[in-house]
Amino acid sequence: MEKNGKGNAAIASDGHAELARIIEFCTEIDKQKFIRRHTYLTDGVRLENDAEHAWHLAVMAILLSDYANEKIDLLKVVSMVLIHDLVEIYAGDTFAYDEEGKLTQKARESAAADRLFSMLPDKMAVKMRGLWEEFEAWKTPEAKFAHTMDNFQPMMLQAATDGKSWQEDGRTLAEVLGRNSRTAEGSEILWEYAKSEFISKQIAKGHLKE
Amino acid sequence: MEKNGKGNAAIASDGHAELARIIEFCTEIDKQKFIRRHTYLTDGVRLENDAEHAWHLAVMAILLSDYANEKIDLLKVVSMVLIHDLVEIYAGDTFAYDEEGKLTQKARESAAADRLFSMLPDKMAVKMRGLWEEFEAWKTPEAKFAHTMDNFQPMMLQAATDGKSWQEDGRTLAEVLGRNSRTAEGSEILWEYAKSEFISKQIAKGHLKE
Repeated sequence: MEKNGKGNAAIASDGHAELARIIEFCTEIDKQKFIRRHTYLTDGVRLENDAEHAWHLAVMAILLSDYANEKIDLLKVVSMVLIHDLVEIYAGDTFAYDEEGKLTQKARESAAADRLFSMLPDKMAVKMRGLWEEFEAWKTPEAKFAHTMDNFQPMMLQAATDGKSWQEDGRTLAEVLGRNSRTAEGSEILWEYAKSEFISKQIAKGHLKE
Repeated sequence: MEKNGKGNAAIASDGHAELARIIEFCTEIDKQKFIRRHTYLTDGVRLENDAEHAWHLAVMAILLSDYANEKIDLLKVVSMVLIHDLVEIYAGDTFAYDEEGKLTQKARESAAADRLFSMLPDKMAVKMRGLWEEFEAWKTPEAKFAHTMDNFQPMMLQAATDGKSWQEDGRTLAEVLGRNSRTAEGSEILWEYAKSEFISKQIAKGHLKE
């Protein structure tokens, strides 16, 4: 992604109409903070919300980018993880282990993306939706690494809470490996680390079923 | 900031020791999600936390970068807003209108930065602390725009909640203008917008004292 900042002259001519649409969008996405995930925070008490999760992924992408398998455009990865769950504002969170919900997830989220991103000025809407679709398509080095972050961070929180929700849900190793079937595509080193530090240790403690 | 991703070979040789330090840091900063700010979310009920705030600033920086006064390195701005409040994990949040707290803020936050960033491998610690210090110094185009985001977003939430905490705190126009004395340095257009859309309208409604 290119650097930004064009100075005032170029965009002042819209009489703030485009700006007002962007601000409306920025206000609307505050709702991301009310969408609860299934992961406990490190206190082991409160569940994480989508905005907190996206923030955590973005910081981690910056700190862990050297561990990516391929060369990545870090601004694109960070932008991707920051917005990857926005569609849940209208489509709701689909739990990674909710097999029934996942059947309708694509259609619900695509409709949500239509509604949400069309709030933005056209050019920006295309760019943001493109970024989200690139993440969903899981093909580019950036999308692969963004997904690795999205899978790695909840396991890191599981480890920090001694596998609390894995225990509560009676989660099995096969399910966790299934969810992480593509985690290594973004970073083999991080996937190896997750297996040895997050998964194996919880199995040894009996907090994740073999 | 440069693009990242070097492939595995260059960093596998540390036997995961450096990686383990980064993961420990990533786990520690989960605490950012428990630091409550003084701004109500758009529901007008719950107060925002630091992680949600940083996420919101980062997305807004991406969407509003064209409104910056000067050319900016967007990855640097986004990185800066994502980490700008991390020191509060040890130093606590200092409310923008807490004149007494602000007297000791610099010393508390500097000590917190020593403690927090030293968890990271040396090179990364220097980079992250440098980013935070650049934000604090408020001199580069990136730091100025990051501060504009940091000032603009809470006013946007005030507008969305009809000035709720301004009303509760009996906030005055002079105080808000004082807090925003440098907001225009990052973006004149956004400061003009904030004055007309966020501040003047709440004054007209009597929710912000003149």
